[in-house]
Amino acid sequence: MGKKVTTAITPTREEDYPMWYQEVVKASEMAEKSPVRGCMVIRPWGYTLWENISSQLDEMFKETGVKNAYFPLFIPLSYLEKEAEHVEGFAKECAVVTHHKLEQGENKKLVPAGELAEPLIVRPTSETIIGESMSKWVSSYRDLPVLINQWANVVRWEMRTRIFLRTSEFLWQEGHTAHANEEEARERTLMMLNVYTKFVEECLAMPVVRGSKTPSERFPGAVDTMCIEAMMQDKKALQAGTSHFLGQNFAKGSDIKFQNADKQEQFAWTTSWGVSTRMIGGMIMTHGDDDGVIMPPRVAPSHVVLLPIYRKDEERAEIMAYTQALAAELRQIRYHGRKIVVEIDDRDIGGARGWDWVKKGIPLRAEIGPKDMANDSVFLGRRDKSARDKTGVKKDTFVDGLCDLLDEIQDTYFQRAKAFMAANTVDIDDKKAFYDFYKSRKGIHGGFAMSHWCGNDACEAKIKEDLSVTIRCIPFDSPQEKGECICCGKPSNKRVLFSKAY
Amino acid sequence: MGKKVTTAITPTREEDYPMWYQEVVKASEMAEKSPVRGCMVIRPWGYTLWENISSQLDEMFKETGVKNAYFPLFIPLSYLEKEAEHVEGFAKECAVVTHHKLEQGENKKLVPAGELAEPLIVRPTSETIIGESMSKWVSSYRDLPVLINQWANVVRWEMRTRIFLRTSEFLWQEGHTAHANEEEARERTLMMLNVYTKFVEECLAMPVVRGSKTPSERFPGAVDTMCIEAMMQDKKALQAGTSHFLGQNFAKGSDIKFQNADKQEQFAWTTSWGVSTRMIGGMIMTHGDDDGVIMPPRVAPSHVVLLPIYRKDEERAEIMAYTQALAAELRQIRYHGRKIVVEIDDRDIGGARGWDWVKKGIPLRAEIGPKDMANDSVFLGRRDKSARDKTGVKKDTFVDGLCDLLDEIQDTYFQRAKAFMAANTVDIDDKKAFYDFYKSRKGIHGGFAMSHWCGNDACEAKIKEDLSVTIRCIPFDSPQEKGECICCGKPSNKRVLFSKAY
Ligand SMILES: [Zn+2]
Ligand SMILES: [Zn+2]
Repeated sequence: MGKKVTTAITPTREEDYPMWYQEVVKASEMAEKSPVRGCMVIRPWGYTLWENISSQLDEMFKETGVKNAYFPLFIPLSYLEKEAEHVEGFAKECAVVTHHKLEQGENKKLVPAGELAEPLIVRPTSETIIGESMSKWVSSYRDLPVLINQWANVVRWEMRTRIFLRTSEFLWQEGHTAHANEEEARERTLMMLNVYTKFVEECLAMPVVRGSKTPSERFPGAVDTMCIEAMMQDKKALQAGTSHFLGQNFAKGSDIKFQNADKQEQFAWTTSWGVSTRMIGGMIMTHGDDDGVIMPPRVAPSHVVLLPIYRKDEERAEIMAYTQALAAELRQIRYHGRKIVVEIDDRDIGGARGWDWVKKGIPLRAEIGPKDMANDSVFLGRRDKSARDKTGVKKDTFVDGLCDLLDEIQDTYFQRAKAFMAANTVDIDDKKAFYDFYKSRKGIHGGFAMSHWCGNDACEAKIKEDLSVTIRCIPFDSPQEKGECICCGKPSNKRVLFSKAY
Repeated sequence: MGKKVTTAITPTREEDYPMWYQEVVKASEMAEKSPVRGCMVIRPWGYTLWENISSQLDEMFKETGVKNAYFPLFIPLSYLEKEAEHVEGFAKECAVVTHHKLEQGENKKLVPAGELAEPLIVRPTSETIIGESMSKWVSSYRDLPVLINQWANVVRWEMRTRIFLRTSEFLWQEGHTAHANEEEARERTLMMLNVYTKFVEECLAMPVVRGSKTPSERFPGAVDTMCIEAMMQDKKALQAGTSHFLGQNFAKGSDIKFQNADKQEQFAWTTSWGVSTRMIGGMIMTHGDDDGVIMPPRVAPSHVVLLPIYRKDEERAEIMAYTQALAAELRQIRYHGRKIVVEIDDRDIGGARGWDWVKKGIPLRAEIGPKDMANDSVFLGRRDKSARDKTGVKKDTFVDGLCDLLDEIQDTYFQRAKAFMAANTVDIDDKKAFYDFYKSRKGIHGGFAMSHWCGNDACEAKIKEDLSVTIRCIPFDSPQEKGECICCGKPSNKRVLFSKAY
């Protein structure tokens, strides 16, 4: 019998994947549940990750000419009524503000007072209000394009929540653009999907499949919904970003009109695109292992933790001076535009200290004891290796090679995730094999099946009903190829990506 | 009779200051009213300013060891009940969420449904929930200090609103720190006030008076409330930032306890500090003139606009190439850590184009016509000079001297505001003179009176009632000096700062 390897996280991924996720988030101190049902407190280690995600994305948006703006938290009820007109049995889960005051009632209890004439909705998106603003801002072709983005909190009341993956309040960005012609709007839709792809693959080290949604999975009102889909370690898909080409539908709804160069009035062509803190959940489930979270260096809240080790008080001053000097040296280095962030952890808590940082997923841990110092070295642990696999490295080698080392770790994570996705993506042409692929594996969800689909909504619905498997996208790079629909057997000329999904 | 000088903004500051403010904001396209009462839409020109403010402040916070986190938008009603217990006739203006769903009622009208068991409040601050989190995070002296900041939107229901200055929803940051001893917490309170002072004076070019609030003007629960006060051009004060030393009061209310090195349980010592989008209103009212907003270069959304001028289509290509090349060259330059931001405005709308940028307050406008190009020059307008005062400058001189020129403009704004504040700050020792200072000047509000105060709440209240004048602060640099209270004539040993205020 092999010796059981102890892991920092219980249960392991294999034992109970959903519980593993919860424990990993908790152990990393990234976020925790709040007293308000379905809302989270994002702690510094998690929020700094979000800052690194949002600031890098923001820079990429701005390079394409997008500017940020801010729209009100509240939406008048009447704005949603138009939408509701088109939807049978409309019911929308959202936070409704009905009063603007609290007063002291009986027994010192507080009671809502000052009822509003018209209730307000806490924005589930700012779409309607951005549309109205654009309609005021645009009158001539000279005012186009309008390229707007908003970073904000939004609320969608959720009954079953999981931190980062599905919360009643979450943080996101929503981009909205208006153009004078269809071609430019279509280009923008793809451009923003490509920005997401580049960011998610290069910075989050998550390989994705790019494609378009089927009509039934499209965003309401969209002519084309493009998305990127990533594979989690339980082999389910997670949509990591979407970009919508809305044609003139949204402009008609919001009355975004302009006079073209020939003095003719036309509706604008619009797009919208967004990613959210859900991305963090995807990153955790892509890379995390049984020792905790794994942070890709490009977005890691900190790159290196220095762990001074001294047994006697006499040693302390010297070790700390060496540690501080090394930290100062490292902080001069820039890694992909960001200064190297160094933590110094001198807590006297024994072995738990190193494990805390493993669980947080910091790329590098450098222990510094009297021997290391005498040797002008550090004792280095890498998060891409086993936690116990540490080696002595000369300090200068460490400093000079830091960026290359971080790039190497970043690439290791990406290649590992890519290999995992490739190993769990299979072409399936046989219906029984397809059903078997998704059936009866406890906690494991088959993977990505590339199978033919005739294009019929009914086949899509049938598979969803039977297996809870959906078409995640029609991949852009899926070649034209004759085949038979995995559901009905009718002719198809392209494989699509099926999977269970978050 | 002198010729009336035409201004870009009507009315002028002198004619109607409050209306001038509204018109200036509108003309600059910084922000506008939203369909939701009391909320604003912050347009790109205003939001980019906020980004420049928040990112620079954020960097300064982080240099002092502060990390950002995020707390839920909603606060359970019960959290406010504790607070209400201590307040007679408690009535709080805030947005109350009572339902979590919308359903279609009669006539396709939407009605709130899914009533919550306990109403939720949209955060007016995150204080209570941050306190609860800290109480969970802190158990040992090793966990201290906790240095947390949050950038977020908050809501306080306002009946009379003015864009940036008082809105129901606004953007702000709130810092909260917990410490193991009083001294460290007091140091932190002053440290953050100094961060605000440095930022407001150096980046917003607004001179301020630093001091402590009187007991009656303190933040509820604070042992000491420090503030910075700026003077607007109507001579009223605007509080541009506050930093509170809360002693152990807040820790007792939120149960933030820790075990010290001697294993004794103690309450932590806490601070809180914040600034908001209100700061933008203060910046506008400090610098703006009758031609519109004036943006100090250190925070300006853009530094330079290039205005290509061509009469014939043949000229266009060459002029645009010259313009683009100049823009590329300028964008290589870093000004106080930020890349120079260049706008190119080639709209064919005549003289209105230049005026648009004057009204937006951009520091520099460079016209580029065929003659300028032939001369390898630009025709330069500076926002710190009259809009019609433009001069030819060699392109290389312009590029090489850009940072110095921006610094010069920045300093001009600061010195001008400082001189204005000095000219309108007077020592007053006579009660009648004091009352005259604040009476019967239509739209002008006297200024800052440095007068003696006995320390009695009643005197403070009397002056507030008679004149709507309050003690803005007890300035740190007000020397010990014998005198008589401006209200009751009793002995005083220090002058305090009186003023009308926003
Ligand atoms: Zn079919
Ligand atoms: Zn008195």
